[in-house]
Amino acid sequence: MREVAIIGVGDTKFGELWDMGFRDIGIAAGLAAVQDANLAAEEIDALYVGNMSAGRFIEQEHVAALIADYSGLARDNIPATRIEAAGASGGLALRQGYLAVASGMHDLVVVGGAEKMTDVGDTMAAEIQSSSTDQQWEVTFGATFPALHAMIARRHMHDYGTTREQLASVAVLNHLHGSMNPKAQFQRAIDLKTVLNAPPVAEPLGMFDCAPSSDGAAAVVLCAMEKAHKHTDKPIRILASAQASDTLALHARSDITSFQATRVAARHAFKQAGLEPKDIQVAEVHDNFTISELLAIEDLGFFPKGQGGKAVVDGQVAIGGKVAVNTSGGLKARGDPIGATGVAQVVEIVSQLRGTAGKRQVAGARFGLTQNVGGTGATVVVTILGAN
Amino acid sequence: MREVAIIGVGDTKFGELWDMGFRDIGIAAGLAAVQDANLAAEEIDALYVGNMSAGRFIEQEHVAALIADYSGLARDNIPATRIEAAGASGGLALRQGYLAVASGMHDLVVVGGAEKMTDVGDTMAAEIQSSSTDQQWEVTFGATFPALHAMIARRHMHDYGTTREQLASVAVLNHLHGSMNPKAQFQRAIDLKTVLNAPPVAEPLGMFDCAPSSDGAAAVVLCAMEKAHKHTDKPIRILASAQASDTLALHARSDITSFQATRVAARHAFKQAGLEPKDIQVAEVHDNFTISELLAIEDLGFFPKGQGGKAVVDGQVAIGGKVAVNTSGGLKARGDPIGATGVAQVVEIVSQLRGTAGKRQVAGARFGLTQNVGGTGATVVVTILGAN
Repeated sequence: MREVAIIGVGDTKFGELWDMGFRDIGIAAGLAAVQDANLAAEEIDALYVGNMSAGRFIEQEHVAALIADYSGLARDNIPATRIEAAGASGGLALRQGYLAVASGMHDLVVVGGAEKMTDVGDTMAAEIQSSSTDQQWEVTFGATFPALHAMIARRHMHDYGTTREQLASVAVLNHLHGSMNPKAQFQRAIDLKTVLNAPPVAEPLGMFDCAPSSDGAAAVVLCAMEKAHKHTDKPIRILASAQASDTLALHARSDITSFQATRVAARHAFKQAGLEPKDIQVAEVHDNFTISELLAIEDLGFFPKGQGGKAVVDGQVAIGGKVAVNTSGGLKARGDPIGATGVAQVVEIVSQLRGTAGKRQVAGARFGLTQNVGGTGATVVVTILGAN
Repeated sequence: MREVAIIGVGDTKFGELWDMGFRDIGIAAGLAAVQDANLAAEEIDALYVGNMSAGRFIEQEHVAALIADYSGLARDNIPATRIEAAGASGGLALRQGYLAVASGMHDLVVVGGAEKMTDVGDTMAAEIQSSSTDQQWEVTFGATFPALHAMIARRHMHDYGTTREQLASVAVLNHLHGSMNPKAQFQRAIDLKTVLNAPPVAEPLGMFDCAPSSDGAAAVVLCAMEKAHKHTDKPIRILASAQASDTLALHARSDITSFQATRVAARHAFKQAGLEPKDIQVAEVHDNFTISELLAIEDLGFFPKGQGGKAVVDGQVAIGGKVAVNTSGGLKARGDPIGATGVAQVVEIVSQLRGTAGKRQVAGARFGLTQNVGGTGATVVVTILGAN
């Protein structure tokens, strides 16, 4: 397999983008990435698009062809492929693009992720999000997506003594990071009291423990490493891409305080990259709920099992800490347009490794990691990136 | 890139499978393919699933993880990825599986396709199918999926003198083939009068010019060629896999009597395989409407432009003709469970190349081709297979 580099990144602001349609946001992000890579459209060999549920959000399937069409890429008849794995759609699209370049099939591939969630009401958006879990054995019996994460949180509190305040600290930190990101949906820092006093969604999780519904898109340009220097002085290497699955329903697992798929994907990814958790300076993890970030930083091996909450409170995942986590604001504050999220995570890490992350730059960032989750951990993809 | 072989195939009956759920049909096809390949589940490295719209048909996204879970594959945490490109979802899933093996990332990959369409009513099924075309610029203005194909048919009749009877002959032939396939949805031969006298759907297309709504699944097992002989004496080689895009909406094209994406994908595929159209003895093409088969056999280069209708009437695409087309019965008679179709086409070609197609066996079949279409030709994937 050939080495693969990222040579361009682009994204839209995340939020309620009522003046832009699905195709507009997809094209805006893709165009930004292509310009960042100094490419002409004719050079692009293929397009991959991560998207969870355009079929239900905007009654449009076949969205990779749609983006190829409206971006002008269909003129060259290039392959356009949509990938779906709920919240992990973006990360998996990146992995398929990576394989297409690594295999030698293509040299230059654009990978985008996009979702337009706010064209439907909040209730419908919540219902669609629940379709990432087991419709037949979870949703039918009334288990919403927040409720399933609330069960995970309760069990984590029971087994490891994790506190409500530790959960809330995740939201406080990610909102602080979001306040430094001009593209974040929420750019206001909040305090612990705000999180603790917010209306409950599914106890112990309140409104500020849950990522919002968002519109947005992100894109990256992949290139065979051997050709990357023709386009950029600072290619960012994809050192590893690993994906793992678990049961769709929580009730089929022996332990719900850990995502086995994260542990397996991380093990494969660190092995492929020849690195260990301690080598990573910056990571974007899938904090769709505050509890999810604790599971992530434990399952990825950054902190011992059950110590995630303490690590957050002690500032170990802040900028300047042991490993800076979710410097973009994470899903919590940057926003979570589902299919875009996994790609946006990579955009943030690329900015960090290029040293262009502005106010939220992590000094000396050399290796970065993303962890992107579908459903309640049934799909996880872990990507490790390295500065040249 | 490594050579890739198909070492196992499986499928369900296509039709109104009201006693089976989505997960049941997916697992039935996958299990049949894995048994056909003489594999133990633990040997499988990854799963790809083609599916168009489970989100709307059964309110379940994240279906690759679902199939991995219920087939027991999630126990080994293998990657499971869903691919969507409307009617081309199955063919594209095969192509991603092919890339995963060709790249060296995986040795043994299961590719499945599945759709459960009959759990919603006919009107909703038609509406969902229309979401493969441009929602904003075609569907909103009342253009249904059959109506768009009716326009293609009208123009083909105008430009090339194609007749209503020639269109009807496609249905007659494919129903004849379906009558020889015990897994086909329609197993009764029909005559020309039946097709011509059927109620109109979108003139000139009547009820027998349109493929039905179907439930069903199909699966194949891919293996690196260098390891295929450990599992089977008759590996079938994937000689080429090519994919191309076009505009989503018909109105943006200079010519609607031809699918440019088919022509481009076919050109790439024949080049990769080192073959020409005359080398192919058997082909499965995307006859979701009778007119679609004429476009396919012309655009693939089997017959000159405008001569497709005459070729069908002259028996040149029948078993024993120049190239046997849709020996399975095609989408028209075998049925069209959207995401399953592209994979089912490959299952049929593998049976032909193995010489196990029974009553519908094409004598001396050595090279076979599939053409799988998404929307009105916005995505096309062409696969060429060879007997060993």
